[in-house]
Amino acid sequence: MTGIDELPVRDELRGKSPYGAPQLDVPVRLNTNENPYPLPEPLVERIAERVRDAARNLNRYPDRDAVQLRTELAKYLTTTGHHPLGVENVWAANGSNEVIQQLLQTFGGPGRTALGFEPSYSMHALIARGTGTGWISGPRGADFTIDLPAAERAIAEHKPDVVFITTPNNPTGNAVPPETVLALYEAAQAAKPSMVVVDEAYIEFSHGDSLLPLLEGRPHLVVSRTMSKAFGAAGLRLGYLAADPAVVDAVQLVRLPYHLSAVTQATALAALEHTDTLLGYVEQLKAERDRLVAELRAIGYEVTESDANFVQFGRFEDTHGAWRRILDKGVLVRDNGVPGWLRVTAGTPEENDAFLDAVRDLKKELDA
Amino acid sequence: MTGIDELPVRDELRGKSPYGAPQLDVPVRLNTNENPYPLPEPLVERIAERVRDAARNLNRYPDRDAVQLRTELAKYLTTTGHHPLGVENVWAANGSNEVIQQLLQTFGGPGRTALGFEPSYSMHALIARGTGTGWISGPRGADFTIDLPAAERAIAEHKPDVVFITTPNNPTGNAVPPETVLALYEAAQAAKPSMVVVDEAYIEFSHGDSLLPLLEGRPHLVVSRTMSKAFGAAGLRLGYLAADPAVVDAVQLVRLPYHLSAVTQATALAALEHTDTLLGYVEQLKAERDRLVAELRAIGYEVTESDANFVQFGRFEDTHGAWRRILDKGVLVRDNGVPGWLRVTAGTPEENDAFLDAVRDLKKELDA
Repeated sequence: MTGIDELPVRDELRGKSPYGAPQLDVPVRLNTNENPYPLPEPLVERIAERVRDAARNLNRYPDRDAVQLRTELAKYLTTTGHHPLGVENVWAANGSNEVIQQLLQTFGGPGRTALGFEPSYSMHALIARGTGTGWISGPRGADFTIDLPAAERAIAEHKPDVVFITTPNNPTGNAVPPETVLALYEAAQAAKPSMVVVDEAYIEFSHGDSLLPLLEGRPHLVVSRTMSKAFGAAGLRLGYLAADPAVVDAVQLVRLPYHLSAVTQATALAALEHTDTLLGYVEQLKAERDRLVAELRAIGYEVTESDANFVQFGRFEDTHGAWRRILDKGVLVRDNGVPGWLRVTAGTPEENDAFLDAVRDLKKELDA
Repeated sequence: MTGIDELPVRDELRGKSPYGAPQLDVPVRLNTNENPYPLPEPLVERIAERVRDAARNLNRYPDRDAVQLRTELAKYLTTTGHHPLGVENVWAANGSNEVIQQLLQTFGGPGRTALGFEPSYSMHALIARGTGTGWISGPRGADFTIDLPAAERAIAEHKPDVVFITTPNNPTGNAVPPETVLALYEAAQAAKPSMVVVDEAYIEFSHGDSLLPLLEGRPHLVVSRTMSKAFGAAGLRLGYLAADPAVVDAVQLVRLPYHLSAVTQATALAALEHTDTLLGYVEQLKAERDRLVAELRAIGYEVTESDANFVQFGRFEDTHGAWRRILDKGVLVRDNGVPGWLRVTAGTPEENDAFLDAVRDLKKELDA
């Protein structure tokens, strides 16, 4: 049998493992920041209806530019983001991962670098590797906020071509203040100028507002989004970005033609028709998230401030051992490799109760 | 307004245009090798049903490894390709373009090169550019067959990391004999060793058999496929590959996690349930393709032998002018940039009649 290492794979891939959380069969799965609420039945029917229509034309290539979908996404952003955007400001792809990949193929790539403030969404670094973009691990403070002077120094020193700012940050949960984002944008322009990608995958769960209004007059700023979380559609793989129209034009130079299938476009359009219902679930999840923060602190854990649909808690001497013991109690959380800390997704009230029971027990065991 | 050139895009993207045929509103569109037959209504209903089921779980990430879909694709290949394959031999992605992109991210990339025999599927070179892979344009004979000695010399000289062989070739239509593929594989192994990717997007339309049996004992060989053509599902964006299991493991190091949506997997599974019906349409299209070849020759055109669902015909002194004049007669064909030649997709009998009328008129005009 042939092994990977007997194939002529790129050197930097040798010995690596594919990205992905363990997909384990556990009663309570709170490890991948999925929305616990299934789509409402009227939306399920609407998806079936729209996909049936799309299937009647499936022998033809889909709308390569996804104009209708981008128009509806722009309306959603305009309504919720307090900033007027049109179809020319929006681009969509198969998950925000593909959006980020297209951005790095356009603005990063061989001989260029990207910088993120770690710990953060680990796919940024992995997609950099996959696109031949050099990766620079920028600093974060001990409380997981971005230490602005240290961050500005890192940008000035490394002059990255792309800077990632994840807000709310994953896996830590905390949001980045707008004035920090603005200062980092200025630092990035002074250094290079570079593109600044604000990853707002979890913004709908935030106590604060989206940074979309900052796009005004900043052609090197990009805001990336996803329908995986707030829209409860992780299975759909629909990511999108908002930016200056020139950025939308530029990523089309690297996008694979017809990258977004007709069924994906149809399903996303159906979900956007049900925005109000889905954002109602977001409100429930925000309340549950706040409850998790409060209860975890009451139990005696340290908790990072969260503006997302998940909570980082700790601290553990044996982090992976703690993860394992919670799993043994029937609850799957995430060990993101941040020493001392684990991450739990806000689930349904019942799932969160099960999680809180498990970590209450764990605390007693650890204190014993 | 900001222009692309005011953004810090990669130098090699400056001045480039996005790939894609003009999407024009014309009565008869025979320019993108789509299957002219809409999916049968029972399949449309089955897609709606399967997607409805998938939508009930859409808040969860899809099966990251698409095990059920890859299993069914392996069965299809085993049945039609005369070579036993299992799920471990098959990988799927959003169109064969994404399959090729993943292959080049794994085996090509910065500091590496890929070689194709041109004219061929132009996305190979474009995806090479998008992945930072150097592109080498290999030779093809005047009759568009691969000149084996010249091809072997090119491989020996350039030592590419990846060699593309498209059979049937697009846009020329001719198939590559198995013994030529074998000789090129040997040449590529002697030179580097390199990966050899056989792009069989149109193989179901061929007079000959798939090269899948050549996979036996050749871990550096990959066969790529698509459901866009024979399955009449260009709108679905489902490409796949067959290879040694080590290749399937290797591309997982670069694939974006959860790249294949739950709706895509559900739709593709539905289509695979209707394979027999869809392959029936393929037989009709093969007959129409043969008719196009015969009639074009009877009219007085030169025609390249075709094993695909399209036909290359010529020759024209003013190729783009001829394209324009056929369009003025209500028929959209493709100018692929091969001097002297145009490409027409086999459509329905009525569409093909309209095309033949148009080029019969054109011939009279040109001869006048």
